[in-house]
Amino acid sequence: MRDTPYLAVDEQLLEANLVAMAEHARQHGLALRPHAKTHKTPEIARRQLAHGAVGLTVATVGEAEVFADAGFDDLFIAYPVWAEGPRAQRLHDLAGRVRLRVGADSVAAIGMLARAAAGDGHPVPLAVMVEVDSGHHRSGIEPARAAEVAAAALEQGLAVDGVFTFPGHSYDSDAADRAAADEQAALRVARDALLGVGIPCPVVSGGSTPSAGASRGDVLTELRPGVYAFYDAQQWELGTVGHGRIALTAVATVVSLRGDRVVVDAGSKILSPDRPAYASGHGRLPAQPGARVVALSEHHATIVWPANAALPALGERVRIAPNHVCTAINLVDELVVERRGAETSVWVVAARGRNT
Amino acid sequence: MRDTPYLAVDEQLLEANLVAMAEHARQHGLALRPHAKTHKTPEIARRQLAHGAVGLTVATVGEAEVFADAGFDDLFIAYPVWAEGPRAQRLHDLAGRVRLRVGADSVAAIGMLARAAAGDGHPVPLAVMVEVDSGHHRSGIEPARAAEVAAAALEQGLAVDGVFTFPGHSYDSDAADRAAADEQAALRVARDALLGVGIPCPVVSGGSTPSAGASRGDVLTELRPGVYAFYDAQQWELGTVGHGRIALTAVATVVSLRGDRVVVDAGSKILSPDRPAYASGHGRLPAQPGARVVALSEHHATIVWPANAALPALGERVRIAPNHVCTAINLVDELVVERRGAETSVWVVAARGRNT
Repeated sequence: MRDTPYLAVDEQLLEANLVAMAEHARQHGLALRPHAKTHKTPEIARRQLAHGAVGLTVATVGEAEVFADAGFDDLFIAYPVWAEGPRAQRLHDLAGRVRLRVGADSVAAIGMLARAAAGDGHPVPLAVMVEVDSGHHRSGIEPARAAEVAAAALEQGLAVDGVFTFPGHSYDSDAADRAAADEQAALRVARDALLGVGIPCPVVSGGSTPSAGASRGDVLTELRPGVYAFYDAQQWELGTVGHGRIALTAVATVVSLRGDRVVVDAGSKILSPDRPAYASGHGRLPAQPGARVVALSEHHATIVWPANAALPALGERVRIAPNHVCTAINLVDELVVERRGAETSVWVVAARGRNT
Repeated sequence: MRDTPYLAVDEQLLEANLVAMAEHARQHGLALRPHAKTHKTPEIARRQLAHGAVGLTVATVGEAEVFADAGFDDLFIAYPVWAEGPRAQRLHDLAGRVRLRVGADSVAAIGMLARAAAGDGHPVPLAVMVEVDSGHHRSGIEPARAAEVAAAALEQGLAVDGVFTFPGHSYDSDAADRAAADEQAALRVARDALLGVGIPCPVVSGGSTPSAGASRGDVLTELRPGVYAFYDAQQWELGTVGHGRIALTAVATVVSLRGDRVVVDAGSKILSPDRPAYASGHGRLPAQPGARVVALSEHHATIVWPANAALPALGERVRIAPNHVCTAINLVDELVVERRGAETSVWVVAARGRNT
């Protein structure tokens, strides 16, 4: 018996999710480069590669360092890295030992990256992917201006692998198809902008878990979903998958009971307080879809049980799928792996907290 | 130069906050037992005790273990602990080496605690505090029924130190005074329920950071605020304090710029996605109160800059106060301590992630 709360992975559901996305990518002629920020776990990344992923996507230099240390040699930091201070040296060291791509959305950032790659008289190869905005309005240059950044990279001695976007506006009700169409349109403009000035654009990279199912190999060459390894309450409520596909839950104990309110010991420090506007609560119970997590404190989740279901007893255990699996996993140092409910192993979340 | 993002503590503001709350407690004849779940950091707990705190409050057995290991010998786990499995043995070991109080809000939980304290023929002293609900409607028995739990504890060989509540409904606009009044009323009922059946009730414990200023020593004997060590954007927006009191910020770098939107590298994996309904955004900038953090991803905060202020440049650093400091600190392994902007030391967040 393990003390609650902890995050449990259903190994068979995880495997099925990995296989399904690999198959989808294959069917559409897309390279799969899963985003490892979701799991931060080398054991899972190894499985993704075994199923045919071409490399990994990460969000930070720190995550890249962890996966490089674990033997992964083809990494894409899909982020507009500002290569200043210790980070410049770290990026240089990393580019010296793995095949490294890094995002950029400004000419100023290219200057910093070029200096980092040039090092102190020991230049290393570094490839840039130009980030463009496809409608999420976060980072990313306007697609029509992608060639400005690419040309600056080439001028300053960096390689250019292509263009990428994150269609994060797929995270809304009924938004996945539209986001996938926006992604396709933006990447086409960006690719054509590079080709128009004679810059080759071999890699055209997109993908988010909600929109991945609608992503096609027309313009795209590469997909970078992350959440699909587990799915979560958010994906269930967005309709990306049914709750039977959710491979990670927080196991919690009922510690207090009052009327139809069940209080369990999984709070925001294990589920994370992530709650999109469209969510029905602070997580969902796959085994009790009618229940709602109506309040979340740091160590309490308050669940309203459906009227027609028997209330759990004090001390009973329940399983809650977090709203957003990426921010939940970043709270723990290990994932408890189960097969048919029995614990089979523990995986280390090696890149937890690697924010820099 | 340190790579961003990181959490920085202004040591002088921290000290001033610790002094002010200690003084408030003293003025009203209240014992101060700060909640260490906020900082999870022995260095800060030591300062709290140096300013007169009588002991620490923690949320989990795991936090208690970390603070016991760091030499703290008077701990209150203000949580309805379900003492089953390994946790029962851990609780027994802990009660054998420090003065330990633990929360309970049911007779069933008392049974588990009594068995844990009895151990395997090696009984240890364990004191119970009965948790009552004062209007937050999370855990806690109705105040009038507090004596049921206390009597069960005494019958089963546990000590009873008193009653406690968390007036968490203070976390809403203009709710602090009402929550403090509710706290007072509920604790009076609970205390009188114990006294009415001849059970002494030396400790009457309450307190949350928003309501602490309105807490008086009429019924209460003890205060357990946590956030007050740093305050945060939430307390600023609730009006608990002005932004000049906020002692912790995330230091972030501008990585992307577009129009009045500034994208920095502090996202939900360092600020935490905690966002109460009343918050104006996903954190606030004390140095730029007119700015709003309008969107937060895992590694991006999108900030809309006020029209009349000069935009920061790419690569410039900004400081963001998280909405909820407790969930932000739980994301990092260390706090960077500064005095007048210069780094003076690094404190280990020793109890980070200790959820069980």
